[in-house]
Amino acid sequence: MLKPDTEALRAPLNAFLDQHLATVENAHLQAAMRYSVDAGGKRLRPLLLLATVATFGGEVEAAMPAAAALELVHTYSLIHDDLPEMDNDDLRRGQPTAHKKFDVATAVLAGDALQSEAFTLLGQLTAQPQVQVALLQTLAAAIGGNGMVGGQVMDMDSQGQTISLADLKQLQRLKTGALLEAAVVMGGQLANVDAATFGALRAFAAHFGLAFQIQDDINDLTKTAAQLGKTPNKDVAEHKATFPALLGLAGSREALQQEVAAAAASLATLNQPAPQLSAFLTYFETR
Amino acid sequence: MLKPDTEALRAPLNAFLDQHLATVENAHLQAAMRYSVDAGGKRLRPLLLLATVATFGGEVEAAMPAAAALELVHTYSLIHDDLPEMDNDDLRRGQPTAHKKFDVATAVLAGDALQSEAFTLLGQLTAQPQVQVALLQTLAAAIGGNGMVGGQVMDMDSQGQTISLADLKQLQRLKTGALLEAAVVMGGQLANVDAATFGALRAFAAHFGLAFQIQDDINDLTKTAAQLGKTPNKDVAEHKATFPALLGLAGSREALQQEVAAAAASLATLNQPAPQLSAFLTYFETR
Repeated sequence: MLKPDTEALRAPLNAFLDQHLATVENAHLQAAMRYSVDAGGKRLRPLLLLATVATFGGEVEAAMPAAAALELVHTYSLIHDDLPEMDNDDLRRGQPTAHKKFDVATAVLAGDALQSEAFTLLGQLTAQPQVQVALLQTLAAAIGGNGMVGGQVMDMDSQGQTISLADLKQLQRLKTGALLEAAVVMGGQLANVDAATFGALRAFAAHFGLAFQIQDDINDLTKTAAQLGKTPNKDVAEHKATFPALLGLAGSREALQQEVAAAAASLATLNQPAPQLSAFLTYFETR
Repeated sequence: MLKPDTEALRAPLNAFLDQHLATVENAHLQAAMRYSVDAGGKRLRPLLLLATVATFGGEVEAAMPAAAALELVHTYSLIHDDLPEMDNDDLRRGQPTAHKKFDVATAVLAGDALQSEAFTLLGQLTAQPQVQVALLQTLAAAIGGNGMVGGQVMDMDSQGQTISLADLKQLQRLKTGALLEAAVVMGGQLANVDAATFGALRAFAAHFGLAFQIQDDINDLTKTAAQLGKTPNKDVAEHKATFPALLGLAGSREALQQEVAAAAASLATLNQPAPQLSAFLTYFETR
């Protein structure tokens, strides 16, 4: 049994990801997939899943394939988002983006394979088959046409447009929020939690996801390339709909604080303490 | 219960695909996904799955989501293959390719969403959970890094190279064969066939898949754009490894005939007649 401290799970998670990517036989493809997975991501989504499993007494080690699946999906989405015809980013986490390091065709295919491999990992879980099916349903719904990709299309279509705060929240709920919500829901499914707990977890994830996006928008305006590991001020340059554009910087900081407080309040409705989930709220700079 | 004639399953399959795509809420994304799914494909993979289910007495109607999943995966792979930085095709099935009709970003995202929706459909089956998990394992393995995408990378890397017949067969086994094999294996899983039957089905699919690719290579050399619905002579122009390049046209026709005969022989080892599967062999022009 792994230690229940979330940070302690980072090393076994990375080892698991490494082990899975090593199974890709084509050297060119494996190198491209590895390049982006190993580029120093925070592992937020898988650690959120594992923290949820640990909080509710599930088997953390057995949950590793599901956690890794989330990181593969997240990485695929970043690779495709960075493509020249999409966000056209040359820099990600301080390194050349996949299509710069390799080429566009390799980047498209590495992203495609990472999505498939995420589902391969769900098929490798040792959970009950009905739990595996529930996880499949949650992940696929979170990332498909009415989830992450739908949000990405909304984001693309909103460039240069003025959209309402409600539309911006809906866009971010899909583009970023859906996979974060899937992380805690899948953690709950693996730990076999009750309906009330799912409700609290979904509420937590919804507020966490919004806070996450508001923080990201604020960072884009206020941080340097070195701090961000990517090109700053891109949102303004590309006329993207952002929280600071609609609420101003001070208004965005206030909204961030509100979402973090609401996320904490959601955790407080659980019928047990959840320090490992609360710990994720320290990510935000609410002052 | 649907009629066991495979051709009769085309209309309900198309209706099912239509119904599923209608659930995509974003109009722009739905239109792009629909455009390529509705572009007049032969529905070879889903019909192969349904024919297998019917042959072994499975529930054909209940198998529809799995069949549709195969068509969504196939469509996603075509959209991404046609991209400018990949095969750079402007024409597919006689119509502008997705990135020509829409744009590259939309085409990438429509392909991404189609892959996710395929897994959503597997999650919607009413089969036993352990059957659903088996289908998930089969599909994900067939299309990931050691399946379809792996084959696509090999294909890309082989351009301008001289590769052996063994390497070309391995490339095609992954790029095209893996999903065709998944179609009959998933059909067998849904109909709960025994191990010997899986063996015969896999052998049939392996020969069918090779025959399919040899026919495709021959067509590229011998048919007009109007007959193909896509640009002919692309393989030669792009210095692609093909069967005619290695075996000549006459040699390729002979190899095609051998693979079709071997596929028929594989079906003959089944402990029951399989006229619906044999019917797929009439696709090939073996004279």
